[in-house]
Amino acid sequence: MKIAIAGSGALGSGFGYQLHKNGEDVTLLDYWEEHIQAVNEKGLQITVNGIEDTAKMEMMKPAELEEEMDLIFIFTKSMGLESMLEDIKHLIGENTKVVCLLNGLGHARTLEKYLEPKNIFMGTTMWTAGLDAPGVTHFQGEGPVELQNSDPNEVKAAKEIVEVLQESGLYGVYSENVDYTTWRKACVNGTMNALSAILDANLAELFETSTINSMLYSIVTEFSLAAKLEDDVDLDVDEIVGYLTGVTAANIGAHYPSMHQDIANRRPTEIDFLNGAVVEILHEHGEEAKYCQAITDLIHAKEDVLGIER
Amino acid sequence: MKIAIAGSGALGSGFGYQLHKNGEDVTLLDYWEEHIQAVNEKGLQITVNGIEDTAKMEMMKPAELEEEMDLIFIFTKSMGLESMLEDIKHLIGENTKVVCLLNGLGHARTLEKYLEPKNIFMGTTMWTAGLDAPGVTHFQGEGPVELQNSDPNEVKAAKEIVEVLQESGLYGVYSENVDYTTWRKACVNGTMNALSAILDANLAELFETSTINSMLYSIVTEFSLAAKLEDDVDLDVDEIVGYLTGVTAANIGAHYPSMHQDIANRRPTEIDFLNGAVVEILHEHGEEAKYCQAITDLIHAKEDVLGIER
Repeated sequence: MKIAIAGSGALGSGFGYQLHKNGEDVTLLDYWEEHIQAVNEKGLQITVNGIEDTAKMEMMKPAELEEEMDLIFIFTKSMGLESMLEDIKHLIGENTKVVCLLNGLGHARTLEKYLEPKNIFMGTTMWTAGLDAPGVTHFQGEGPVELQNSDPNEVKAAKEIVEVLQESGLYGVYSENVDYTTWRKACVNGTMNALSAILDANLAELFETSTINSMLYSIVTEFSLAAKLEDDVDLDVDEIVGYLTGVTAANIGAHYPSMHQDIANRRPTEIDFLNGAVVEILHEHGEEAKYCQAITDLIHAKEDVLGIER
Repeated sequence: MKIAIAGSGALGSGFGYQLHKNGEDVTLLDYWEEHIQAVNEKGLQITVNGIEDTAKMEMMKPAELEEEMDLIFIFTKSMGLESMLEDIKHLIGENTKVVCLLNGLGHARTLEKYLEPKNIFMGTTMWTAGLDAPGVTHFQGEGPVELQNSDPNEVKAAKEIVEVLQESGLYGVYSENVDYTTWRKACVNGTMNALSAILDANLAELFETSTINSMLYSIVTEFSLAAKLEDDVDLDVDEIVGYLTGVTAANIGAHYPSMHQDIANRRPTEIDFLNGAVVEILHEHGEEAKYCQAITDLIHAKEDVLGIER
């Protein structure tokens, strides 16, 4: 199967590597010159759950690949999705399936501008990854990757993709309600990520603050209103807050979430696709999300104070 | 006139010094040992608008002063008001007037627990001050000090206090609506102070952020709802936001407001008497102030992350 990875940073490289090892015809796509050169010269150096390997794989810029693909996985940052879709238009044919596992909200709407619903497969992944140097990455976890067809008639196609992920050791799971999974994951990122970034705190410090319950309940309540209005998804606010509180007890207290790392490394954050998206959705329905508005305003203000270009 | 300054930090010392120079019988009250010792041994060393002076004045702990006072000015931090009132109960007689110029909201309610309305005079001041070392302070500005009687029958008494302030170079002004001035000043502190502290930004940086308008309008709007419900005060949101935007153009861009200094110096902030008070007031009236709730939660979380005891 001809597969392209559209965005081959840490997570994309990990997915590409696993599919490649399973015998698929995988092309890695990216924009970063040094990274592309390193992979083409020395192979992809990757450590998967502690085991090192070097894989001879091809990496190039999207414009350099010419054939139509059978399957494309998108692994950009949220704000890079639309320009990536522009850049891979020529790879998408009548039957090219596109899988989007990005964090955040509102991506299905963006995909619908470029693709027919029958070719769109939305999902989430619990794999994590990091890029250590050009051409050198690590990939960790045990999945799962949940995904679902956007067109109700395409269950079979979704299950075929899930099977490829299973065979490749990526632990694919067919989801009956990927919107729920997406919203629930957005709640995790819209609380831990955003608050850690504003407060410059790791998760242990964050969850020991006296106002953690007010912060979690206020944010998750606004997310749940938006989930209901936008996708008819019923989130259980108590369950999610309980889950979040439990997570930090599980040995990840010293962890700084990705948005904190974005701020620390002077990169723009994905806040507009999390708390900012909730503000927009409620606004479109004549409601307000003032708590998420404050969080979004403060993250953008922090980016501005640090001179981060958006 | 026998006057006590209840809380003789930077601002209290400045007021005490000006009144003393005008010939009033002023006693400075404070709790800080080194400060008390320094003033009693070397006099109060004070720089008023750039002019240095040393004044032989008495400073002691509240319990050490025994006579009833004619007039008491309170200059504690907001959270120190109630315990100070406990500690100066023995100085307050049937005709002792008490002037409260503290920043923040809700102080009149606290004073009413200890004093009859006829003896309460609420106000605001635009003087600023700093404590450079024990016994060494600076005092800056040109006022005004606005104040008003809490009991409608006490206009004459208020005007007498205003006259003393005038004679002492403190630029007293009788206010027809001190509630309005108090709320308007609280808006300034509830925006500039709180946002600068959360973002670790000076005023120039803060006012150049892309979300400054959303932050100012959201906060001032919630303050204005609370002002109306609590004190029937009509704030003009546009006027206040315009004023705030103008202030930073006026050469104070490099300034870090006091709440930023509190956080930087690991001291508890006055957030519960600003944005936190607005949350409480709207809550009591069955309304919500989610934006101010977020600001309050984040400031307290920041205090907790930094190990600041409240």
